[in-house]
Amino acid sequence: MRKILLPDTLTDTPALPAGWEAAVIDARAEIPAEHRDAELLVVWGASRAHLASAARDLPRLRLVQSLAAGIEGILAAGFRDDVEIRSGAGLHSPTVTEHTIGLLLALVRSLPESLEAQHRGQWASHLGGLRELHPEGQLTTLLGARVLIWGFGDIGRTLAPILAALGAQVRGAARTAGERGGFEVIATEDVPSALPDTDVLIDILPATEQTRHAVDAAVLAALPDHALVVNVGRGATLDQDALRAALEAGTIGGAALDVTDPEPLPEGDPLWSAPRLIITPHAAGGRPVGAAARIEEALRDLDGAPPATEA
Amino acid sequence: MRKILLPDTLTDTPALPAGWEAAVIDARAEIPAEHRDAELLVVWGASRAHLASAARDLPRLRLVQSLAAGIEGILAAGFRDDVEIRSGAGLHSPTVTEHTIGLLLALVRSLPESLEAQHRGQWASHLGGLRELHPEGQLTTLLGARVLIWGFGDIGRTLAPILAALGAQVRGAARTAGERGGFEVIATEDVPSALPDTDVLIDILPATEQTRHAVDAAVLAALPDHALVVNVGRGATLDQDALRAALEAGTIGGAALDVTDPEPLPEGDPLWSAPRLIITPHAAGGRPVGAAARIEEALRDLDGAPPATEA
Ligand SMILES: NC(=O)c1ccc[n+]([C@@H]2O[C@H](COP(=O)([O-])OP(=O)(O)OC[C@H]3O[C@@H](n4cnc5c(N)ncnc54)[C@H](OP(=O)(O)O)[C@@H]3O)[C@@H](O)[C@H]2O)c1
Ligand SMILES: NC(=O)c1ccc[n+]([C@@H]2O[C@H](COP(=O)([O-])OP(=O)(O)OC[C@H]3O[C@@H](n4cnc5c(N)ncnc54)[C@H](OP(=O)(O)O)[C@@H]3O)[C@@H](O)[C@H]2O)c1
Repeated sequence: MRKILLPDTLTDTPALPAGWEAAVIDARAEIPAEHRDAELLVVWGASRAHLASAARDLPRLRLVQSLAAGIEGILAAGFRDDVEIRSGAGLHSPTVTEHTIGLLLALVRSLPESLEAQHRGQWASHLGGLRELHPEGQLTTLLGARVLIWGFGDIGRTLAPILAALGAQVRGAARTAGERGGFEVIATEDVPSALPDTDVLIDILPATEQTRHAVDAAVLAALPDHALVVNVGRGATLDQDALRAALEAGTIGGAALDVTDPEPLPEGDPLWSAPRLIITPHAAGGRPVGAAARIEEALRDLDGAPPATEA
Repeated sequence: MRKILLPDTLTDTPALPAGWEAAVIDARAEIPAEHRDAELLVVWGASRAHLASAARDLPRLRLVQSLAAGIEGILAAGFRDDVEIRSGAGLHSPTVTEHTIGLLLALVRSLPESLEAQHRGQWASHLGGLRELHPEGQLTTLLGARVLIWGFGDIGRTLAPILAALGAQVRGAARTAGERGGFEVIATEDVPSALPDTDVLIDILPATEQTRHAVDAAVLAALPDHALVVNVGRGATLDQDALRAALEAGTIGGAALDVTDPEPLPEGDPLWSAPRLIITPHAAGGRPVGAAARIEEALRDLDGAPPATEA
């Protein structure tokens, strides 16, 4: 029997081809000795020790299938060069899209303010009834809103058409410029000049050396005072002190963070009480959609190749 | 000069054809005597006294253009039979759609719970991180969710494709069954049998004699315990006491009301403190999108006809 190792964090079980067996292992622990014959490893919510052990203790390993979009940790774990590493790109695009729309509409529709009035048992008349579609100095609808999605990868391409269907004018920003899926994508170096014409900045950047504090004080200052900022990428890509200062000074309209640096955000962090800010606990993704099918694809690819011998 | 009367509540000013003049009048007061020569009246946020005066005091009136989707009040005001009454159908579909998605995602993504943890300065770990896509007994994503839109008119048809793009399975319910815009629409009498297979019930019904308390205790009881209920139609179409009882008993998962009966919901009403409920202050629409264009269309139609003489 050939062997695949599945993490105990997985809830979507793949079907196995004939001749394969699966072992479910603790994603936070070292690889048990009896499983050193595995050829395929699925990674989801793994600890650093787990990855280090996998890189060291699996001589027959051929393929690592991650279920996460970001695979920085796996790349850093020291797997042999002949081990193929596949990311879970796309598995989180629908869930992260849904959360991003939810956060953005909560800001645009002043839900936190409505909820506070509700807690006091009061009808927040100023938020409802007859009013202007585009009041001066405030973004109260996505209709006509100019949205810039910074990090226009798989999630960005899933999110963009839904924002467009909600009436927004959507552009992306990535390492290279060009049209993608019908949306204009600008290069990172052109982001500064685009910011004054941006009502909503959505950060979906991965954490890399280049993206550290991509959204910094200068970026926030270049946005209009009514602009909204959403981070669903990685906490390290946004300067939280600068964000808090901008919120407190009123030089941006509001923000929502699903990711922070560090995570969890510590008790007592001043960010907790910043005004017009929504924080969710890295809740956008966390549930790879179509995980079993992705693993089955990896199994099929390996099944077509001869059984691995010790490398 | 021929005359159009514009309400002071209007913020989107139409261009006038040659030979026409506009007078802006108080939408909450009687029609001033000097404006009894008007042929076209635009109604937006009018008081009952305003409508009664308009019906009585405008002998040359040919057309009433409402900017609201519901025109119950105008129909009841007693205009002459030869006065054409046009509703503002469609003008609120994009804004109400946006708000509905916002309310629904706030429920699905537990935003009120995240915000409460945030107020306490706490990371709500149980809402984030690695977890199941479809946990037993709880709706945490629209992916695969079975949505029933009760009242499948202009707003419903705008909302449905966006919910579908978010991964939901959408059906409508209206007075007559049939396919509309690619979505299955069932007849009202078939709603009871559809409820057990409904994860999200969205009420966008107008207030009529037939729709009073359409969403009642029996409807709520027929829904699964995890089901979410959203009302963006009219407060009178939902039995608020039954909703509160269902929320308190845990026989529905959560609810969001943008409309209540009465409005504003009085201070001290027990609904304010019902669990897992979001209340917004009739904030979905209130901003007719494309009002000027709709008024210009009415002006063009009248301009093509000879000037009105006293009826
Ligand atoms: N909040 C959550 O629960 C959650 C869940 C899943 C993922 N995420 C985060 O979302 C990120 C994106 O996911 P994805 O699936 O969309 O990834 P992806 O398909 O790899 O896309 C990444 C995008 O970021 C761009 N990018 C990378 N480095 C850049 C730089 N230095 N400057 C400008 N753009 C840069 C890439 O540009 P090019 O296209 O030009 O290469 C690409 O458009 C993940 O890395 C992860 O950090 C968060
Ligand atoms: N919350 C807000 O800010 C806001 C803003 C605007 C409007 N609204 C509310 O939303 C309502 C709908 O707006 P709309 O533009 O979509 O109106 P619409 O185009 O007139 O559609 C109304 C829908 O309700 C259905 N309906 C009417 N009576 C019914 C009954 N007894 N049983 C079942 N279905 C019934 C109609 O069925 P048929 O198609 O079979 O006729 C139609 O599908 C308005 O009347 C208003 O009350 C709320």
